[in-house]
Amino acid sequence: MSKKVQNDSERKRETMEKSLTQMGQLIYDQIQNREFPWIHMQSRSTDNIMYDPDERQYILGPRMIRRHSRNIRHIRPFTQLIWTSWFAKELVRQRKTSTLREVYYSARGQRDIEYSGQQESDNIITDLEVALNRAREDFHIFPEERSSIFGDLTIEYTVPGYEGRRTNLTDHPDGAMIGPAVTSSNFIETTADKVLVVEKGAMFTRLVEERAHEKFNAILIHTAGQSPRATRGIINRLNKDHGLPVYIFTDADPWGLHIAMVIISGSANAAHLRGLSTPNAQWIGVNGSDIIEYKLPTEPLSEFDRKRLTELKKDPRYARELWQKELDILIELDQKAELEAFSKFGLTYIVDEYLPAKLGV
Amino acid sequence: MSKKVQNDSERKRETMEKSLTQMGQLIYDQIQNREFPWIHMQSRSTDNIMYDPDERQYILGPRMIRRHSRNIRHIRPFTQLIWTSWFAKELVRQRKTSTLREVYYSARGQRDIEYSGQQESDNIITDLEVALNRAREDFHIFPEERSSIFGDLTIEYTVPGYEGRRTNLTDHPDGAMIGPAVTSSNFIETTADKVLVVEKGAMFTRLVEERAHEKFNAILIHTAGQSPRATRGIINRLNKDHGLPVYIFTDADPWGLHIAMVIISGSANAAHLRGLSTPNAQWIGVNGSDIIEYKLPTEPLSEFDRKRLTELKKDPRYARELWQKELDILIELDQKAELEAFSKFGLTYIVDEYLPAKLGV
Repeated sequence: MSKKVQNDSERKRETMEKSLTQMGQLIYDQIQNREFPWIHMQSRSTDNIMYDPDERQYILGPRMIRRHSRNIRHIRPFTQLIWTSWFAKELVRQRKTSTLREVYYSARGQRDIEYSGQQESDNIITDLEVALNRAREDFHIFPEERSSIFGDLTIEYTVPGYEGRRTNLTDHPDGAMIGPAVTSSNFIETTADKVLVVEKGAMFTRLVEERAHEKFNAILIHTAGQSPRATRGIINRLNKDHGLPVYIFTDADPWGLHIAMVIISGSANAAHLRGLSTPNAQWIGVNGSDIIEYKLPTEPLSEFDRKRLTELKKDPRYARELWQKELDILIELDQKAELEAFSKFGLTYIVDEYLPAKLGV
Repeated sequence: MSKKVQNDSERKRETMEKSLTQMGQLIYDQIQNREFPWIHMQSRSTDNIMYDPDERQYILGPRMIRRHSRNIRHIRPFTQLIWTSWFAKELVRQRKTSTLREVYYSARGQRDIEYSGQQESDNIITDLEVALNRAREDFHIFPEERSSIFGDLTIEYTVPGYEGRRTNLTDHPDGAMIGPAVTSSNFIETTADKVLVVEKGAMFTRLVEERAHEKFNAILIHTAGQSPRATRGIINRLNKDHGLPVYIFTDADPWGLHIAMVIISGSANAAHLRGLSTPNAQWIGVNGSDIIEYKLPTEPLSEFDRKRLTELKKDPRYARELWQKELDILIELDQKAELEAFSKFGLTYIVDEYLPAKLGV
């Protein structure tokens, strides 16, 4: 077992536990001072979420709010927040992880905590992120896993029972799930010089089978639709800490485009967090011009697709000329195409022709 | 590299290639005999699909059909079937795999093959299964992967580049994806004495974290909703070839119940196949009685849930007293509960109390 890994991971855990304890201490102090307890945090209301063109992501503005137990309308969310902090502290103390849903159901076992549904609980967890200025993964709350990863990356686990154990992510040719273990692991070494992100399992399997990781010297990531935050965090680390350029490969439709955009510029929901977006990541298609150039099989846009494209046109993340043009092409074509459309030219075309052209290799 | 594994897998591949070649040869012979070519196969029409209470799964009846190119209505599906057979043969010959969707798009690259949509292509692939009496995975056509597996099972890969390489499925604590590599692997050894199947990623992660694989000496399988066929095949192999009893753990609602039932008794769509159902597998809840006994947090049934329960009541797979009772309880309660509902009693309750009670350990 690597002593250093254990120490790093333990130090991170202890820091988190300390933050949560301090938050509790503050409340105690307020009560002992005969104050109604309150918590100070950045406002997450729509008018305090703004798009920062320099950071190329949404950020929170300067407005702060005080959630105050003296205010009758605040008592419910205040109590929920305090309970959630306690729950997070227990997770961190006991070295356990939990999912958003489990947190919600755990609350339902409490006599004095009430939620109208999971949405309310998720929302309070986001409040706690804002109050602590940390992502929920740091206090051990994870989404349900579904993304996967494959390629020459040696990772070192920090989860209990596996501390310091290393594995290379080419070991299992169907790919490794991205769950708490990969998310919390240290990235030790890689010979890859890029990251290739795809939204679909079928294409991921195709890339593994065609040895795209060797041909393009790439780490392959399968998001399974819109990337979970943990996966976006991993993409960010590979780009920022390890200097690997990131290429995103999605369907040519508003949903595929937006999968790429959320990896690049993040979401309004995560405006209070850093380290989840990768502004330098590059969307390499399938785009509208590819549909024409490659004469790809298409489907007509649905009413829902059209509506979504119009929304994206107004989204500040799509303000740049380049993106506006991509949206316009799709709107004008009134057609969409899937990644698998390239199979028309044979199963290996994507690896033999399309990707080399797009990656310039 | 293990010579034996390579030989077994190579022999299987060669047999498949030979079957497909023979099928083509038959067509050639018919043409050379100046006949309009035709193919003989079991009928998959509804009136030829019947539930076999002994086998505890759907089977095809004795009725055969002849798909005949002399018949104008048959020419389209006949041509599609021949093309699909050629495509499958190429896959097998080139040691490649493909997904259902890729097959569909590959057809769209052909001048003379036409499909109204993927459904029609999928349907022809099922015809080919019937004609060859083999599952599509045997001729290398896989669904998109999404299930995962974790536990003390040593497997030996047979996929190109990994032949004879072994891995133990506890190596990666987030679980291994079940794709072509796991599906085609040989199961070498296990110390586990049971298989525990869960439908949700959150519960899978919980079980791994609580070391349920050690506590219950179990291989853990995460189906991610309704199990893909490859996953059902793996469950069957662990039960039949390795003698491990199988326990299925799902939500208490018609969808959870039916995830269990399809593992146990298969689906009408796969009536022509064997080796995908596990009649001895046991559903261990969450059931209606658990909702009452454990006072679980519930949600009311939706209109859609109610309709589905009524359908299941008439489904021959639910004919047994036991299942009828379970359906009745849910209908009467008019409530449903999720796996995560046990978090009410603490995150480890499920592993400390519920599962030991249900597994009798």
